[in-house]
Amino acid sequence: MRFLHTADWHIGKKLHGFDLMEEQNNAFEQVKKIALEQKVDAIVIAGDLYDRALPNEAAVEEMNQMIIELNLKLKKPILAISGNHDSATRLNTGHDWFKTTQYFLNTNLADALHPIEFEDTQFFLLPYFQPYQARNLFEDTELIDVKVALKRIIKEMKTKFDPKKKHVLTAHFFVTGSSKTDSETKVEVGGLNAVPTDLLQDFDYVALGHLHDKDALREDRIRYSGSLLKFSVSEATIQKGVWIVDTDPFKCTFMPIIQPRDIIVLTKSYQELISPEMVNQIPSEAYVAIRLTDKAIIPDIMNNLRNYYPRIISLERAYGREKNAAEEESIDLNLGPMELLTNFFNEITDEEISSKQKKWAAQSLNSLEKETNL
Amino acid sequence: MRFLHTADWHIGKKLHGFDLMEEQNNAFEQVKKIALEQKVDAIVIAGDLYDRALPNEAAVEEMNQMIIELNLKLKKPILAISGNHDSATRLNTGHDWFKTTQYFLNTNLADALHPIEFEDTQFFLLPYFQPYQARNLFEDTELIDVKVALKRIIKEMKTKFDPKKKHVLTAHFFVTGSSKTDSETKVEVGGLNAVPTDLLQDFDYVALGHLHDKDALREDRIRYSGSLLKFSVSEATIQKGVWIVDTDPFKCTFMPIIQPRDIIVLTKSYQELISPEMVNQIPSEAYVAIRLTDKAIIPDIMNNLRNYYPRIISLERAYGREKNAAEEESIDLNLGPMELLTNFFNEITDEEISSKQKKWAAQSLNSLEKETNL
Repeated sequence: MRFLHTADWHIGKKLHGFDLMEEQNNAFEQVKKIALEQKVDAIVIAGDLYDRALPNEAAVEEMNQMIIELNLKLKKPILAISGNHDSATRLNTGHDWFKTTQYFLNTNLADALHPIEFEDTQFFLLPYFQPYQARNLFEDTELIDVKVALKRIIKEMKTKFDPKKKHVLTAHFFVTGSSKTDSETKVEVGGLNAVPTDLLQDFDYVALGHLHDKDALREDRIRYSGSLLKFSVSEATIQKGVWIVDTDPFKCTFMPIIQPRDIIVLTKSYQELISPEMVNQIPSEAYVAIRLTDKAIIPDIMNNLRNYYPRIISLERAYGREKNAAEEESIDLNLGPMELLTNFFNEITDEEISSKQKKWAAQSLNSLEKETNL
Repeated sequence: MRFLHTADWHIGKKLHGFDLMEEQNNAFEQVKKIALEQKVDAIVIAGDLYDRALPNEAAVEEMNQMIIELNLKLKKPILAISGNHDSATRLNTGHDWFKTTQYFLNTNLADALHPIEFEDTQFFLLPYFQPYQARNLFEDTELIDVKVALKRIIKEMKTKFDPKKKHVLTAHFFVTGSSKTDSETKVEVGGLNAVPTDLLQDFDYVALGHLHDKDALREDRIRYSGSLLKFSVSEATIQKGVWIVDTDPFKCTFMPIIQPRDIIVLTKSYQELISPEMVNQIPSEAYVAIRLTDKAIIPDIMNNLRNYYPRIISLERAYGREKNAAEEESIDLNLGPMELLTNFFNEITDEEISSKQKKWAAQSLNSLEKETNL
């Protein structure tokens, strides 16, 4: 069979205050198109459908419409699990009805042990879980971390393996490189909650969610799909997309998702940034992260730059910043808390503190002071 | 056909801090039993399934289980609408799948115009709505309040009436007595958002939710079911239950729900309240609202009474209370805000303010003071 592997939709997410709904709908349309063109037999969503346990109403409506579109209108079977950002309980609403239209959603650890049989393949849908859930399920107090719990879970899954079928696991956790071979990914970032790839070798394919980079692992058959969109400046250079996976013969093809609004990092001086050549080069809809090479003080810089780049998501100094006269003076003077705070605010943000912010700060300082005096 | 009419489940509600989940499950079991014994063809739930737009996870799970039980396990069709306490969007999750098992849930005004045909009856499922939604739907700026909007909605519904069938409306709003006949309920409490019964006369039955009293209206065919449980002291004497409605010939029978923990109002003196005869007379699981007939000061009264009645939900003085020496003194003295506050707290609650509460109060007073000085 052929399926599409995606994850980490994070519906409802905002990027530094910018609503991503338009971009998420655009990316979803691309996923739909790929699913149709590639004639996939199913769509695997490996967790973090929502960005938060309590998505707002607009996000709930968006997600509901996406699933209705894929499953009810296009008749595509869906195999999905809850991730650490989802509320398993809330996501589960409607579960018992969904399977009637081949929307197989699993938010429950116990149900992960029972494969969904699908054409030539057995799918094991393992939602994000905490070790205590495994301890309760297996009544085994020794399952102290995700790694040992997963070992136990997979042992159980293997008793259900039909040797005539392929075996696909979908899961949502942090997988490190094999502890035996690939030195580059050997470090167990994430400690006890990281899972070594060794544990996952008995599956024909492992469709992962959690990390947003499709290249986070160097394994042919254990892959993150990455998110559909870039969700932070650190993801600016990561290519986003979905995997098209054929089970027999095994084949894995990456299909890119064009970013409707890209994240672009500009390491430039102020003069370069406001030059027409530079401005014209950057699509006006792009999210721009600025690393300013100037060290000089530039008054009201953020507001000025927003005239050229309306979607600035971060502004930092590549090489630090000169101190202004007040700062130089202040270093050894005995300033009050409010002066220290306004100077600090100005230094960090390159903006003046507003009167409202000043009022909040004054209130907090006052109640702090009174608290210590009580 | 025969259906059960209920409403205002308010799943997730707490009663003065007491979790009602156990009681709500108990009441639900009674509803199930009645539905089975009365062999109803469907269950109508007239809104406020949840107590709030953002129910907690436990409430979501409870509700999901109840619907699964009624609809999937017992195979009872359900006809439900969202009430003012529900989030229409959140409640709607799964909607497109639900109808496949005759769980007809409507949270959308436009869909109210299309009846659900059911045996000999057409059901119109009108969710709680705001006038602006009707203005948008009909593109008519004159629909300024619920009353005129409803007139328009019902006019539209009547074009769908099949004369060979009975017509049942389920809705969630405030209905006043007929503006022509029954003087007792003539007053339009609720003003513009109240609906006169005149408007509803074309239906064979109107199954209402919103008011928690089955006797809120004096109409044979326009009825509130009331809630399943008593949700406040003011509901202490209201009989709770559900209606069993036969459409042909028309018949409406009330089936009481026994309160697993009743609300009991005791207008007694302290000595009467702590007498063994009194204490033994009150079921230990009951919620007790106390109206104390004493006027004398009784130290630590709330804590003392809780030894006898563990579920006190309110304590008030039936005839006011004597002032203590400090209060008498304080009347004309120029006390500081903190002294005034602690005296007031003591007077109202009959308890001493705790050191934690005192600290909070001090902080609030301080920041208030500073705010005015800024």
